[in-house]
Amino acid sequence: MPLIANTPEPPYYAVIFTSLRTEGDKGYDAMSRKMVALAAEQPGFLGFESAREGVGITVSYWSDLESIQRWKANAEHQVAQQMGHQVWYSSFKTRIAKVERDYGATT
Amino acid sequence: MPLIANTPEPPYYAVIFTSLRTEGDKGYDAMSRKMVALAAEQPGFLGFESAREGVGITVSYWSDLESIQRWKANAEHQVAQQMGHQVWYSSFKTRIAKVERDYGATT
Repeated sequence: MPLIANTPEPPYYAVIFTSLRTEGDKGYDAMSRKMVALAAEQPGFLGFESAREGVGITVSYWSDLESIQRWKANAEHQVAQQMGHQVWYSSFKTRIAKVERDYGATT
Repeated sequence: MPLIANTPEPPYYAVIFTSLRTEGDKGYDAMSRKMVALAAEQPGFLGFESAREGVGITVSYWSDLESIQRWKANAEHQVAQQMGHQVWYSSFKTRIAKVERDYGATT
């Protein structure tokens, strides 16, 4: 996947997930890679961008709200979300946003 | 500023700026800090989150589209944008999105 997502013309949706990690890996890295691969297989998935530097910011792009809801309800993703809330994240925020406009080059 | 922005109840707007840096600082760090401080003074500014790890992701939050347009047109910010396009970034994408829903704890 390119570091800057090659998304189509707007409108589409973004899920902005911002988080602070607890200390130690505790299975986080493996699950994180697994969830990115699994998300990429879902209907409506458009792309993914992620960086952690103090705070972690992960933005996934989706064609519509229904695809986002299906991914949130995915059984394996549900397990990862529970682990996230209970073990991996000391704090997090998820924002669902409709991308109305974009500009700039992509890779 | 908190690492996870303390934004109000939706709706509000997010500007998702994703970028790849060229090599060397070339004045980037100082300008970056200056722009964050200047953005925070603008009307309609709600918060800011940023991380760089391979790719840089900066999300700023705003109360409305007019505030985003005013900030984009700010004279000092215009200089920074030109430097960004010509010197600091090898590639970037800006997405303007309306946050419709959010959940999770904040710091």
